[in-house]
Amino acid sequence: MERLGIGLIGTGFMGKCHALAWNAVKPVFGAGPKADLVALAEVDGALAAQKADEFGFAAATADWRDLVADPAIDVISITAPNTLHQEMAVAALEAGKHIWCEKPMAPTLAGAQAMRDAAAKSGKVAVLGYNYIQNPMIREMGRLIHAGEIGAVNHVRVEMDEDFMADPEAPFHWRNETASGYGALDDFAVHPLSLLRMLLGRVDVVMCDMGRPFPDRPDGKGGRRAMETHDIASVLIRLGDITGTLQVNRSAWGRKGRIAIQVFGTAGTIAYDQERANEFQIYTARGPLAEQGFRTILAAPGHPPYDRFIPAPGHGLGFNDLKIIECHELVNRILGKDSRTIDFDAGLDIERTVHAMAESYRTRSWVEVDQAPPAD
Amino acid sequence: MERLGIGLIGTGFMGKCHALAWNAVKPVFGAGPKADLVALAEVDGALAAQKADEFGFAAATADWRDLVADPAIDVISITAPNTLHQEMAVAALEAGKHIWCEKPMAPTLAGAQAMRDAAAKSGKVAVLGYNYIQNPMIREMGRLIHAGEIGAVNHVRVEMDEDFMADPEAPFHWRNETASGYGALDDFAVHPLSLLRMLLGRVDVVMCDMGRPFPDRPDGKGGRRAMETHDIASVLIRLGDITGTLQVNRSAWGRKGRIAIQVFGTAGTIAYDQERANEFQIYTARGPLAEQGFRTILAAPGHPPYDRFIPAPGHGLGFNDLKIIECHELVNRILGKDSRTIDFDAGLDIERTVHAMAESYRTRSWVEVDQAPPAD
Amino acid sequence: MERLGIGLIGTGFMGKCHALAWNAVKPVFGAGPKADLVALAEVDGALAAQKADEFGFAAATADWRDLVADPAIDVISITAPNTLHQEMAVAALEAGKHIWCEKPMAPTLAGAQAMRDAAAKSGKVAVLGYNYIQNPMIREMGRLIHAGEIGAVNHVRVEMDEDFMADPEAPFHWRNETASGYGALDDFAVHPLSLLRMLLGRVDVVMCDMGRPFPDRPDGKGGRRAMETHDIASVLIRLGDITGTLQVNRSAWGRKGRIAIQVFGTAGTIAYDQERANEFQIYTARGPLAEQGFRTILAAPGHPPYDRFIPAPGHGLGFNDLKIIECHELVNRILGKDSRTIDFDAGLDIERTVHAMAESYRTRSWVEVDQAPPAD
Amino acid sequence: MERLGIGLIGTGFMGKCHALAWNAVKPVFGAGPKADLVALAEVDGALAAQKADEFGFAAATADWRDLVADPAIDVISITAPNTLHQEMAVAALEAGKHIWCEKPMAPTLAGAQAMRDAAAKSGKVAVLGYNYIQNPMIREMGRLIHAGEIGAVNHVRVEMDEDFMADPEAPFHWRNETASGYGALDDFAVHPLSLLRMLLGRVDVVMCDMGRPFPDRPDGKGGRRAMETHDIASVLIRLGDITGTLQVNRSAWGRKGRIAIQVFGTAGTIAYDQERANEFQIYTARGPLAEQGFRTILAAPGHPPYDRFIPAPGHGLGFNDLKIIECHELVNRILGKDSRTIDFDAGLDIERTVHAMAESYRTRSWVEVDQAPPAD
Repeated sequence: MERLGIGLIGTGFMGKCHALAWNAVKPVFGAGPKADLVALAEVDGALAAQKADEFGFAAATADWRDLVADPAIDVISITAPNTLHQEMAVAALEAGKHIWCEKPMAPTLAGAQAMRDAAAKSGKVAVLGYNYIQNPMIREMGRLIHAGEIGAVNHVRVEMDEDFMADPEAPFHWRNETASGYGALDDFAVHPLSLLRMLLGRVDVVMCDMGRPFPDRPDGKGGRRAMETHDIASVLIRLGDITGTLQVNRSAWGRKGRIAIQVFGTAGTIAYDQERANEFQIYTARGPLAEQGFRTILAAPGHPPYDRFIPAPGHGLGFNDLKIIECHELVNRILGKDSRTIDFDAGLDIERTVHAMAESYRTRSWVEVDQAPPAD
Repeated sequence: MERLGIGLIGTGFMGKCHALAWNAVKPVFGAGPKADLVALAEVDGALAAQKADEFGFAAATADWRDLVADPAIDVISITAPNTLHQEMAVAALEAGKHIWCEKPMAPTLAGAQAMRDAAAKSGKVAVLGYNYIQNPMIREMGRLIHAGEIGAVNHVRVEMDEDFMADPEAPFHWRNETASGYGALDDFAVHPLSLLRMLLGRVDVVMCDMGRPFPDRPDGKGGRRAMETHDIASVLIRLGDITGTLQVNRSAWGRKGRIAIQVFGTAGTIAYDQERANEFQIYTARGPLAEQGFRTILAAPGHPPYDRFIPAPGHGLGFNDLKIIECHELVNRILGKDSRTIDFDAGLDIERTVHAMAESYRTRSWVEVDQAPPAD
Repeated sequence: MERLGIGLIGTGFMGKCHALAWNAVKPVFGAGPKADLVALAEVDGALAAQKADEFGFAAATADWRDLVADPAIDVISITAPNTLHQEMAVAALEAGKHIWCEKPMAPTLAGAQAMRDAAAKSGKVAVLGYNYIQNPMIREMGRLIHAGEIGAVNHVRVEMDEDFMADPEAPFHWRNETASGYGALDDFAVHPLSLLRMLLGRVDVVMCDMGRPFPDRPDGKGGRRAMETHDIASVLIRLGDITGTLQVNRSAWGRKGRIAIQVFGTAGTIAYDQERANEFQIYTARGPLAEQGFRTILAAPGHPPYDRFIPAPGHGLGFNDLKIIECHELVNRILGKDSRTIDFDAGLDIERTVHAMAESYRTRSWVEVDQAPPAD
Repeated sequence: MERLGIGLIGTGFMGKCHALAWNAVKPVFGAGPKADLVALAEVDGALAAQKADEFGFAAATADWRDLVADPAIDVISITAPNTLHQEMAVAALEAGKHIWCEKPMAPTLAGAQAMRDAAAKSGKVAVLGYNYIQNPMIREMGRLIHAGEIGAVNHVRVEMDEDFMADPEAPFHWRNETASGYGALDDFAVHPLSLLRMLLGRVDVVMCDMGRPFPDRPDGKGGRRAMETHDIASVLIRLGDITGTLQVNRSAWGRKGRIAIQVFGTAGTIAYDQERANEFQIYTARGPLAEQGFRTILAAPGHPPYDRFIPAPGHGLGFNDLKIIECHELVNRILGKDSRTIDFDAGLDIERTVHAMAESYRTRSWVEVDQAPPAD
């Protein structure tokens, strides 16, 4: 395959990330088809034209269905609001396009299920934008865990915290409405779950508590409006014999992009904090006790595909680089090669887990995460 | 009061800590009565004599009841095994002695209750050895929280992790037997609970999961013996409107003395890690956003009673210094002054909380922590 | 200006960095001319063709002079070995091209001087690839310093350390030969000097010591060959009234990309470590002493142009992103806008400083750095 | 020896440290003679009596010569101002007392030399209060270096920074007067030199620059007075083939007790920061490169004599504990055992080094540090 025709829906933060990735994937990785940036869609036609010029797309449209209908397009990047994912993805899959869709899949489990079913039926590649799994540090942590460097894993803790919802005097926001979902669970928990999946596997059973950091916010009309979602969730989890916790807080003052992971095993421990995404820590119970300690490993060419970006260690990848790696994994999957992706099957399982957490909170009881039903 | 007669039961790790504290409290703090080291008790009479010589006690005995009967003794330090605390403390309180007893109080809740009742009846001072609350950093964190520096607290996380039980090939230990209690809950959870109590108050309701990091250990006879206790516990907690988690793991490779605290409020966040016990971090949402960040505060004379030990900032207190502070607080309480202590009332409440966690694990349900019944 | 024709000489590590930057600059920054990737040059013609395909250049040549002669090309990126910079840059400037040249300028001061003179004569933009100055953290540190946040600066320390030359059993390398220059001074010191220049200004006077971490290396023929260059240099510096030190070590085991900066002022201190390039620390002597501490500032949209890459704080830029920013600054300069660049004038001054350090080492005395002669 | 009679001169910060150490050394270490706290001297007789009561000394005097004359006293702790050290130490040595004297020895090199000569003549033990060398972390670093864990050492950097002189609006202080010495060199440089001595050996040759962070301070009479000493010094040093730097700054805002050490070898690197005195970092170039990193070692019982204080790792010693260890080493030396002490011979060599630095600054040239002349 020499060429891959690309369509992009949406030109916001994530739309720009996809555009940057499509521009960079060939220069960075060298091998593989050339990404031909055919067209992008954005509801505002003038903005669409401007962004096509900036992002290097040959054409622009205000109607995303034009991309679905365009035979020159092989892959569609979907970065529109979540409520539109289902319609777009199903239409594109039915038209025989591969899909690169931002997460979460859909506001409802039924919507996510429909997307997964459409992907299964189409036989096309449909992957989700779980970029944090692409960090070479996460990949190396997984390699070390699977190689037994820390023995048999018996406990895990994951925290994801930011502070963009922390100010109680910020105006009421659509993310505080029931219609947007549960709150931090939808917004955040899917990320740690994607990482757990890569490092350890799927979560079987959950026990969840949620919290509201404050009761209300200014409603913009001089009064205050009660918060409807929960910015904080704390979850006891089990992955087979592994006990653990998953904690999310989008009102955590001072945390800007924290995803803190601790994986404990019978022979060592691995720790990671995404605010320092170019390093992780490992302790192995070897050698004289007085000389043991947590080792800080800096990102280096020995942690692929860091080497495709920089030939020197310790110089650091950035957030957008992870999207380039994700894009490359998507292309590999399209080419039928080994790839590291969260497809719609795996994505559905992650969303089932989130819904099980919400049910656990509602019923104040432990809830098992359903296995996805078999494909058609 | 010019003099305080001291008796010490037990000369192991904690006995030595008490002895060091009694030797240092007057030189460090200056004011207050002189500690007169009257006698110590240790079951092995020869060892008792040796330790009396080392620790500076005037006399030694193999029978702890000699201390209870000695009219020259005002305060008895109890550092014997937990199973003996009840008998010793009750006898000493009935004999009109003040008590400084290591935690936890007793293996059973009934025992702890009996100790608390004896203290209430005696009118004497009876405090427990919760030394971590004495760290000037913890005191300063509490001061800042109570002064509203981080706004209204809405979420808290506490982890306590060490690795002395982490090696699955270490021989079966009495701490792995059911008779020793639940495992990490008894051993560890009382510490975070004492800190939470100082910073935020008492825990109302709990939901607990426990884990065993491995199924068995060498039994010392060529076979293996099944683990009976749980080295790992994860607990969802509520303190009024504050949601939170408490996590303990005594099989956490690489963690040596970690007690990690995160307190989130509507205006900031405080974080602490006891492996770096001479510092904490605070983020306050003030000033230009681009200039906000977590501030690392190093222990300094402005954090009393650090100034009684060292007049220069950033030079650091040690673990044993905290015991000296605890000793001073005990003396203050005996003198009828303000003091920062966990007495038998508060200690009983902490142990009720631990037992509620165990019940929650057993019943797989949320459990309310009983209020202590009113004093007689 | 709607279009900028780009030529690239060299396709190694730095060639790839330039290519990635030219591909990304318009998608990232939006405004400005489109980079038209006209042609690249690489001595191996087959490799040239392959790289043109990968990097998205329209044409390839084995002769860099083809780029100089191409009227469609406005800017030439020079990433060939240092020994060739002078010839290429002078030819391109004489042909009316703007130049983006990797540092250092040339092996000799005379060569650098000739390049600078050619640039001055041409009236074209000629800037050097000092990418570390483009880190938004460095920019913010400069802003805070110049705004007086830490008062009057009185002392500075800069260290740059890596370990790629640390292994004494690695074979003798061309970087160990006298012909390659002084050693760490050429290789490394130019970077800290570029940062000092942005933060504080130019160095006036230097006192330098150098060291060889080991006397020889395997010569690849079964023997050993004496080291000719110095991997370590330590320099006392003065910038006006500011005292300071500059230290470089390319044999520093464990250091992978460390550039540690400490700037001390009468009202505060700023510290930075490039191995954690998305954060810096600031201490300001304000408010109650007991609440003062170093604040860790994470990269955020409030630190331009971070916001052009990511709208959320704490998510991190990477090494290659700095090159995109550098490219954008070059374009701004070509457009006659304010820009943050090290041009050939400033670059020559940096290289004069390095040569003064070497002279100081040779003469064991303090050496003043010559002011660059006035432009023609 | 069953008993050691102790006299203490001075009851300020260091006097209290010595008193605490004498009270604790036997309880902590168990074996060895009992410290009999005979008498203390303090110029103010009432204060002397009060401190004797607090510190546990049997008697008090306003005349230090009473201690020299007291046959019950074997060792005299000298913690009076530096200007008095010579007279006191010489008198006490001549009276056959062992000496534990705070550093630096004396304001002039001649004074230090006289003290050293008196010690040599007396045959008594005379050691200086260099407590930082007693940190078990420093001891372990030395053990690892001498065991070859980081190969042959080739470079070293030491920084010592605090901020107690950083505020330009604080009133002129006696430490700013020429009479007090050079400034940071006297005040600080002796500490890093004591550490270097333990880790690597003596400094041979120095090249020093000094700086004043601001020109004057309030004189307390409404005007300003010019600073006479230098709060900042930067020194190039050589220890045999090892190049290095020593940097001190007592006006470094935000640094509270920083002594940062980096030791580079052919097989690894060790790093330490005294603001986190219970840990150090080591990198060893062994195993797969992608798994190498700096290991953080926490203080533990395997680092003697930490085990004498606490049987659990990671719980931390404090500043005052180092003085207890120092006291124990002094006692060991008196007992004729192996000990880790800086005696008057070594102390004189350290002070010669400081004076050589000052001479280097004055002459703007490299200066060799004289070897101490042979003992009489």
